[in-house]
Amino acid sequence: MSEAIRALVFDVFGTLVDWRSGVARHAEAVLAPVGYRLDWLAFAEAWRSEFEPSLEPVRRGALPFAKLDTIHRQMLARVLPKFIASPEPDGARGIMSPPPDTLLDTLNLAWHRLDAWPDVNPGLERLRSKFLLAPVSNGNISIMISLARHNGFIWDAVLGAELAMDYKPKPRVYEQAVQALDLPPATCMMVAAHAYDLDGAAACGLRTAYVARPDEQGPRKPASEGDLGRFDLRATSLEDLASQLGV
Amino acid sequence: MSEAIRALVFDVFGTLVDWRSGVARHAEAVLAPVGYRLDWLAFAEAWRSEFEPSLEPVRRGALPFAKLDTIHRQMLARVLPKFIASPEPDGARGIMSPPPDTLLDTLNLAWHRLDAWPDVNPGLERLRSKFLLAPVSNGNISIMISLARHNGFIWDAVLGAELAMDYKPKPRVYEQAVQALDLPPATCMMVAAHAYDLDGAAACGLRTAYVARPDEQGPRKPASEGDLGRFDLRATSLEDLASQLGV
Repeated sequence: MSEAIRALVFDVFGTLVDWRSGVARHAEAVLAPVGYRLDWLAFAEAWRSEFEPSLEPVRRGALPFAKLDTIHRQMLARVLPKFIASPEPDGARGIMSPPPDTLLDTLNLAWHRLDAWPDVNPGLERLRSKFLLAPVSNGNISIMISLARHNGFIWDAVLGAELAMDYKPKPRVYEQAVQALDLPPATCMMVAAHAYDLDGAAACGLRTAYVARPDEQGPRKPASEGDLGRFDLRATSLEDLASQLGV
Repeated sequence: MSEAIRALVFDVFGTLVDWRSGVARHAEAVLAPVGYRLDWLAFAEAWRSEFEPSLEPVRRGALPFAKLDTIHRQMLARVLPKFIASPEPDGARGIMSPPPDTLLDTLNLAWHRLDAWPDVNPGLERLRSKFLLAPVSNGNISIMISLARHNGFIWDAVLGAELAMDYKPKPRVYEQAVQALDLPPATCMMVAAHAYDLDGAAACGLRTAYVARPDEQGPRKPASEGDLGRFDLRATSLEDLASQLGV
């Protein structure tokens, strides 16, 4: 690479943290004590599956920007009824009725409490010795703060959708991040486990590093990402990425 | 205080870092090797004195928002000629002429290289154990990143003027910070060495902590800040503040 990399910017959900097991665990912790019995992993997958269709109207300007916490909450209101419509035999206790709003608000915090994949903390620590590090996530600032505190991430800044008031892969999100860092795009590298995100970053002149997360979707076979050779780097973990970047 | 404090948000220039000695030192390091002889501290004070008059047109909407780095550079272009109009005897070497733009760009980075007051790092470290911490400065994000790396500050997020696209004490800056944190204003405390900043925060419902920085302006007597009893806390340092907040 001709120009030296100065900053690494990260996708977060799926790339740094395991949303599937985390959302399932949090949902069980919140709902099981009050009598709900769900297929927790299937529920997590269904909640996440509303992600792309929910962001699309914002990206194309049909809906005004709203923070991901707000959108997650709307997604939850659509998804949860499908899972509590067929209660277990102890439904006699009244669990057919939807949980109260305060319980749903607590459940929505699942996305603030996700665990990092095991390589993330040692990888970030090594990368921090040489590069500026910032999340460029579709998650809002307070989710990023919660995840950082929960996992011990140290960021130089929290960039991403809330700063740009739009959602990846819209160019504005990557451009705003690069402008906030005051760096030429070619000195910034987007790190993500999703090709669409890296393609969006590359279109704005950023370098790209693909990190494989084969377990993100659980046993489901991940969709093909096309030829990964189009990305500047391909890594199996953040530790592998740090090694490839010489730290 | 009835509601528990969850986050502390900080003014930076003057409150956390000593701009006067830092700008003077950086200016000397940049300009002295190429033959300029200035009263470095007087130059730092003159540069800073352009701060309020330069932000005022943005606050009242007469000029569009521009990052502080850009405004600092414009301030510099106005101030420096006053200091190099009367060169020392070695002016024969041509130092009457203004420095080239690239040198001024380097000089403008002075605001990225300021040292923290001695109590700041130990104070922030203690405060971080109990509270979310973020700068809410008029400085742009990249200045905040540089100062954090230079001094070893660890922030949960970088909030402030660039996120709000306006300058303190406009309410929007405090409001945007509190919204990004997703906290009720009364659970956030603004920490600053300047009454106008704390008055702005208080008007938006934040708590306030005044930190005395009697040396900010050098030997010049600081302007009266009025009755400091109107602020929730008054501290002599961040360590004192940490003690008062029970950490």
